[in-house]
Formats: sequence, structure tokens, C-alpha cells
Amino acid sequence: MKCKICGNKAVIKLRAHNIALCEKDYIAFFEKRVLKTIRKYRMFDKDHKILVAVSGGKDSLSIWELLLSRGFNAVGLYIDLGIENYSEDSKSKCINFAKDKNAELEIANVKEYFNGLSIPEIARYVRRKTCSVCGLIKRYIMNRRALEGGYDVLVTGHNLDDEVSTLFGNMIHWQVEYLARQFPVLEKNHDKMVKKVKPFVTSTEREVAAYALMKGIDYMEKECPFSIGATSLFYKRLLNELEEKQPGSKLRFLNGFYENSGIFQTFRKELKLRACERCGYPTTETVCSFCRLRERIGNIVEKSEDRL
Amino acid sequence: MKCKICGNKAVIKLRAHNIALCEKDYIAFFEKRVLKTIRKYRMFDKDHKILVAVSGGKDSLSIWELLLSRGFNAVGLYIDLGIENYSEDSKSKCINFAKDKNAELEIANVKEYFNGLSIPEIARYVRRKTCSVCGLIKRYIMNRRALEGGYDVLVTGHNLDDEVSTLFGNMIHWQVEYLARQFPVLEKNHDKMVKKVKPFVTSTEREVAAYALMKGIDYMEKECPFSIGATSLFYKRLLNELEEKQPGSKLRFLNGFYENSGIFQTFRKELKLRACERCGYPTTETVCSFCRLRERIGNIVEKSEDRL
Repeated sequence: MKCKICGNKAVIKLRAHNIALCEKDYIAFFEKRVLKTIRKYRMFDKDHKILVAVSGGKDSLSIWELLLSRGFNAVGLYIDLGIENYSEDSKSKCINFAKDKNAELEIANVKEYFNGLSIPEIARYVRRKTCSVCGLIKRYIMNRRALEGGYDVLVTGHNLDDEVSTLFGNMIHWQVEYLARQFPVLEKNHDKMVKKVKPFVTSTEREVAAYALMKGIDYMEKECPFSIGATSLFYKRLLNELEEKQPGSKLRFLNGFYENSGIFQTFRKELKLRACERCGYPTTETVCSFCRLRERIGNIVEKSEDRL
Repeated sequence: MKCKICGNKAVIKLRAHNIALCEKDYIAFFEKRVLKTIRKYRMFDKDHKILVAVSGGKDSLSIWELLLSRGFNAVGLYIDLGIENYSEDSKSKCINFAKDKNAELEIANVKEYFNGLSIPEIARYVRRKTCSVCGLIKRYIMNRRALEGGYDVLVTGHNLDDEVSTLFGNMIHWQVEYLARQFPVLEKNHDKMVKKVKPFVTSTEREVAAYALMKGIDYMEKECPFSIGATSLFYKRLLNELEEKQPGSKLRFLNGFYENSGIFQTFRKELKLRACERCGYPTTETVCSFCRLRERIGNIVEKSEDRL
């Protein structure tokens, strides 16, 4: 198997693109595709102040790596979720990466907002699913830290597999309102809401993993313990079976959706956003769900302290 | 496991409907759902002259059985494709069924239209895929026989699994023109085109098979030898994995699509149908694809006879 560009020994074969490449040419090929996606969806350019949400996993560290190596002004944001046997390791991966690259890393800690409680503890207190509580809290902190730091855009490492699995779930269940919103770019539509972008939407998980390996990124291989049995992982497996049989189908499915996403706009609900009475960040209610969660936790903690 | 209706021993559990039923109540449940689909999509009623395309398989014999037992005016149409070790058996299943029910069966033979050639022979002569040639020929003959016989509507046995697998393929590949046309009813839109309906679109393959078994229908279990490895079978397997994990998802996916099918209408190409110069049946060209195929076969056969 020879590299299609230079003729040297290829190290990776991409059936979806009908190409085999050596390490050097793969890195160039991968980066070029990502940069093209960034330009195509007008995500950002070199004048922008970029905040990259990093978890320590391959996706987020890879996009940070790519942006840094291509001269973008990209600062990392790590959110410590307080998950045992997971958060400590993932945090140190991010810190080491930042040191190694001489890059700036911001660290936020969920415990600072929730009376010293971690994500699993909060979920237990309010009897909600861990992943749903975690999503809500991360989205809030990412947005708030991005605005407080004066960043123009927030980058996340969502890859093609993530996006296509979400798309598949939304399609199967005809979640038309979600379909109306799913896009590689979420524009700023409130002065306290940052623009959010996903430059890896056209790169598969396998392609990102290969990039991370070739670039020698020391990433966290362990998955979050709460992700076990997630429906999204089941969808990913089905879609990988499809990809195996019809190479390129994940990319075609997602691109076709983006190209035709106009047909779902009739289902788009224009949300009337206003400032949360507590924190000032956007919400459709009087008090935002993050502040309501904080208040519930505050009350519960107070009550249990009363009982002591 | 007890029947939800009568409390006797249940013989089938339907996770998608969260119900277990005895044989008698299953048959009633199944038929009721099909009759509801027939009414909902205004397929036909007891005043109509119905032609049922029967292959000898469980789906087509079951819909014929259901229509006959419920007092509909339903005549069968068997098309002999001339496939060795398959067509003979499937034809005799249809003939026996008709005899048993004292029902009328029309028989058409592909060979009569194509100089004595069978479907596999025709495909080989014109170097096209067997299934594509077969589909074209069957569609033509079904439509023509329905009109020649003065029928109001043509019924086919397509079940939920067939429809959802087609939907899935069209979605994955964003075949928007096909999506704009996929519906349980294809209305007559030319005086030489019969209305086509699929009363089993809300019944899974498993549900139809159970109905066929309970009603003692002697159907053809063998699949067509040309269907091996078909993409539709691969899609069906993936969708069955989904159904296993999320009972009812096939039905929800398809129903959601029908409910939202309006959004694809922007892609509907209004075909300008005219009468084929040879046969008078509708086509978008001067000569319809069936007559062109017949002419090609005629030329090929003549040439090979010349060589003899």
C-alpha cells in the first residue's frame, strides 16, 4: 500500500476517500479538510480569540493541537467535573498538553458553583440522569467562561461520528425541532451567548484518532464511566456497520443533511431569550436552569446541614 | 404470559405495542390495525374492484387472505418470472391458495412479452441487474393488467420492514426525489395508471408472518435467489437491531416520516407523462422503458437467430 501523494509506504487507508497516505501526507490531508470546514462554515479566522473546550480526550486535544500548529489564537478551557478516577487523569492530560505546547489553559471547577459537589453528587441529589445534568452544567460554564474571557468563539471537538449519531437519533424519532437546530455552527443570538463551532464535523472518530496518534498527542483513552450503555454509542455502532458496508456513507448522510437542512427550518421555534434574574445569562424562563439547579442544590445542602 | 384481551394463554408478545395476545385476539388485533391503515390513507372500500399482486410469499398471500375474509372484492395477480426452482413453487402456492379460498387468480407470464425469455435471461441479454429489470417489468405488467381488467386499485404486500428499509436507504443517501414520493398510496395521475396501495405499511414482517402462520396460510418460505446480499436486507438487519433495543422505533420512524412528508414536497418533480408510442401506457419519453426493453430483446434475439 503506497501513499497516493508521495509514493512512500502508506500507514493509513481511507476507504471513504478512496486514498492511502503516509504519515506526513495524512496529517496534511486531515488538516486541510478541517481548515476547509472552518472556512466553509465561516467558523473563525486568525483574528479571532478562540476558546477550545478540552476534556483531555483525543477529539478536543486534537482540534486544539491543529489550531495551535496552524497559528490560531486558541486558549483551552478544562472543566473539572469531579468524577472519580476520571477527572483527575483527564485534567492532567490537559495541563501536560498545555505545558508542552506553551499554550494557555483555563480551568473551571464545577464544585465552585455547587457548594463543593461534583457532577455525580449533584445528579444524585436532584435525582436526574448524570449525563443530562453534566450537559446542562458544561454548556453553561463554557458559554459563561467564553464571554467573561472576551472570546469570539467556542470550539468543541465533536467529530463526524458524534454528529451523525445525533442526526440518526433525531431522524429515527423525528425530533424536528432538534433537526432544525443541528448545524456545525450555532450563531451568537444573544449578547450573552457565544458563537459555538465544531470544526471536526467532517472528520470521523477514526480519522481524528489517527491524527492524534501521528501527532504524538498524549490523550485520555478512558471513556467517562457514565457513558457506558449510552444510546449514542449504540447508534455509532450501527452507523459503523453501515460505513463498513458503504464507505463514506456517514459523511454523505451528514453532508446531505446540512445541504438540505433548510427543509426543517419550518419547525424552528424562535426562542424568546431574556436575561436570567440571577446571573444575567440567557434563558427562556425568569431564572435559568443552571441557577435553578444551584438553588435546589443550595436548599438541599442547607437542609441536610440542618439535620446534622 | 396472558392475553391482554381475554386472559387466556398468550401466543405472541408485541413489545412495540406493549401487548401479549392469544391467537384469536392477535388475528383480530392485526386485522383491525390493517383495516385502520386502509381507512386512514383512503386506500379503497368494499365497492372497489381490487387487484392484489401475489408472489406466493407470506406478505402478499396474507393481505389477500385478510381482504377476502373481510369481504373485499379482491382478485389475485401472479406474474410468472420464469426463475428456476422458484417461480414454479411460488406459482403453485398461489394457485393452491386461490383454489382453497375459491378466489379468482389471474396469471401473467413474462415470457409472453419477451420472446419466451425469463427474467434472468432478459437481464443477462441486456447486461443489467436482475432486480432492476424485474422491478421494471413487474411494475409495468401489474399496472397494465390492473387497467385491462378494469380494477380500481392495485394492492401490494409491502410491509413495515420493506418500507422503513427503503426510507432508511433514501434518508442515508438523501434521495430527496424518492423521499418526496414514498407514501402508502400512489394516486392515479394518468388515465392509464392505476392507483397503488400498501395496506401492510404499519405491520412488521414478524407480525405478518405470525398472522400467516395463525391463519394456516401455506406460503413460499424460500426467498428469491436473486435477493441474496441485497442492500435492503442489510438495512433490515440494522433496523431490526434498532427495534430490538428500542421496540416500536421502526413504526415511529416510518409514521414520523409520513406525518412530515410535506417537507420533501419541494423536491417533487412533476413528471410530464404522455402515452408511449408503442403501447399507449404512460411514460416520460417517446417510447416507455418496457417497450424499449422489449425492442432491445427482440433485436438481440433476431441477431442471435441470424447467426444460427
